[in-house]
Amino acid sequence: MSGTATPTRPEALSAEKESEVRASFARQGLMRTIGAELAALGPGRCSIAVPFSENVGQQQGFFHGGVIGAAADSAGGYAALSLLPVGSEVVTLEYKINFLRPAAGDRLSAEASVLRAGRSVTVTRIDVFVEAGGKRSICAALQQSIMRALS
Amino acid sequence: MSGTATPTRPEALSAEKESEVRASFARQGLMRTIGAELAALGPGRCSIAVPFSENVGQQQGFFHGGVIGAAADSAGGYAALSLLPVGSEVVTLEYKINFLRPAAGDRLSAEASVLRAGRSVTVTRIDVFVEAGGKRSICAALQQSIMRALS
Amino acid sequence: MSGTATPTRPEALSAEKESEVRASFARQGLMRTIGAELAALGPGRCSIAVPFSENVGQQQGFFHGGVIGAAADSAGGYAALSLLPVGSEVVTLEYKINFLRPAAGDRLSAEASVLRAGRSVTVTRIDVFVEAGGKRSICAALQQSIMRALS
Amino acid sequence: MSGTATPTRPEALSAEKESEVRASFARQGLMRTIGAELAALGPGRCSIAVPFSENVGQQQGFFHGGVIGAAADSAGGYAALSLLPVGSEVVTLEYKINFLRPAAGDRLSAEASVLRAGRSVTVTRIDVFVEAGGKRSICAALQQSIMRALS
Repeated sequence: MSGTATPTRPEALSAEKESEVRASFARQGLMRTIGAELAALGPGRCSIAVPFSENVGQQQGFFHGGVIGAAADSAGGYAALSLLPVGSEVVTLEYKINFLRPAAGDRLSAEASVLRAGRSVTVTRIDVFVEAGGKRSICAALQQSIMRALS
Repeated sequence: MSGTATPTRPEALSAEKESEVRASFARQGLMRTIGAELAALGPGRCSIAVPFSENVGQQQGFFHGGVIGAAADSAGGYAALSLLPVGSEVVTLEYKINFLRPAAGDRLSAEASVLRAGRSVTVTRIDVFVEAGGKRSICAALQQSIMRALS
Repeated sequence: MSGTATPTRPEALSAEKESEVRASFARQGLMRTIGAELAALGPGRCSIAVPFSENVGQQQGFFHGGVIGAAADSAGGYAALSLLPVGSEVVTLEYKINFLRPAAGDRLSAEASVLRAGRSVTVTRIDVFVEAGGKRSICAALQQSIMRALS
Repeated sequence: MSGTATPTRPEALSAEKESEVRASFARQGLMRTIGAELAALGPGRCSIAVPFSENVGQQQGFFHGGVIGAAADSAGGYAALSLLPVGSEVVTLEYKINFLRPAAGDRLSAEASVLRAGRSVTVTRIDVFVEAGGKRSICAALQQSIMRALS
C-alpha cells in the first residue's frame, strides 16, 4: 500500500490510550466468547488473534466466517480508535469482506491498518491470516468505515 | 424490492432439502455458541434468530456486530442453498454490511432472500431486525454473494 | 423490503427542493456525457435513466459497469438529498455493487430508495434495471452510504 | 500488503497476452468517452489513467465518482485477466468502493493488483490516486471480485 500515511501519526500509543483500548476490548462479551485476544496495538494498527476451537467452527470444521468478520471488525475499530483522542467512542458504519480461501488452521490473525483518518469517518483495511502447521495464508480481506460517535 | 422473482422458484421446500439444511445448521459450532436458531426456511428464504445474552454483546451491552454478521451470513447462505439440488455445497464469496442503528434489544432476526440465483453465483439481500419491548426495527442490511462449491 | 419507513417522511417534495436537486443534476458533466436523465424524484426516492449508445458500452456492446455505477451512485445521492433541508450538500462515503446479469438492452434505469436516514449518514439501496424489447430485468444491486457534508 | 503472492506468477506478460488486453481496452466505448488510457500492465497488475476534463466532472468540478469507479473497475478486471490463459473472458461480480477525499486534480490513476487468484474467482484491490500540482493523494480504495466467464 502507498500514499496513505497520516503525516502526524505518532510513533507509539500513549499509555492512557493503550489502557483505554484494552479496557474496551475486555468489556466485549463476544470477544471472550470466541476466545479472542488483542495481539498487537499501535497508532493506526491493531491485531486480534483467535485460537481454533469447536466453538468457533462451521459445518466443515474451519473457522466460521462470522468469527472472521467479528475479529476483523473489532481490529479495524480499535485501529481507528487508536488515532482518536482519549475518551472518543466509535461505531462501525459498514464493512465489506471477501473470503479468499477456507480458514482451515489453528489460529486466526486479523490485522488492521488505517487507510485514511478523516474528521468524522476513518477507513481501514484488514487482512485476515490463518496459520496451519507454521504456514500463514491470507484467508479474508476487508474494507471498513468507522465513524466517531457524536457525544 | 421488485423484479427479481426466479420464475421457476418452487412454492415450498422438499422434505429432503429441509432436513439437509437443518442438519447443516446443526453442525455449525458457532451458531450453537451464540444461541442461534433457524426460525424460518422456504425456497430462496431463510431467517435466523438470536436471543440476547451477555455472550453475544459488545462493550455497550448491545448485540455485537460480529453476531449480526454471522447470523446474517448464515441466513443468506441457507437461502441460496435452499434453491440448489440436494447434495450441493455453498461457500460465501463476500458480503457487505451496513449497520443502521445500535442493535439494542432482546432478540435479533436475520431475514435473507435470494435476489438472483445464477448458475454458479447467487446474490442475496439480508435485513436484520432487532426487537425491543415488542417493537421491531431494522438494524443492519447486507448484500452477499454465495458460490456453489465445485465438487 | 420492510420496517424502514421514516415516520416523518413527507408525501411529496417541496418545489424548492425539487428545483435544487434538478439544478445540481444539471451541473454534473458526467451525467451529460453519458446522456443520463433524472426520470423520477420523490421524498427518499430517485430514478435516473440512461439510453444505450456506443459511448456508454463495454467491449461486448452492453452497458459498461462504470455507467451502471455512476447512474446508481447519483440516484442514491439524490434520494438521500431529497430528505435533507434545502441548502444541504452530500458526498458518497461508499457503495457496494453486485452485477446480476449482463446489461444488454436499450435503456438503463437506476432506482434508489432510502433505507435509513440518520443524523449524519443516510443508507440507500439502489436497484438497476435494463430494458430490452419491452422486458425489464434487474441487472445490478447496490448498497450505499451518503454523508451530509459539514458546512 | 502481505502474504498474497501467487507462487507461479510470471515476471512479465507474454506479448500475446499484452496485445489481447490492449485490444479489449480499445473496444470499450466508455473508456474512450472518458479519455482513459492504459498506463501500465504487468502480471496481476494494471493501471488506468484519466486526465481531468469537464466531461468527467461532478457538480463541484472534481472527478465524478462514476469515473473513479469505472476506471478502477476496468483496472481490476485487466489485472485479473492478465493472469488467465489467452482467450479467457472475465466479468465483474461485484466491487466495493470507499471514497477517501474529494478527487480534485488534473489526473486520476487507478492502480489494481490481484490479491488472490482462485480457480474461478479472482479478488483484487485497487487504489485510486489523484494528482494535483505534482502531489499525489489516495482518493478511493476498492475491493473487487472478478469471475472467469464460462465458455
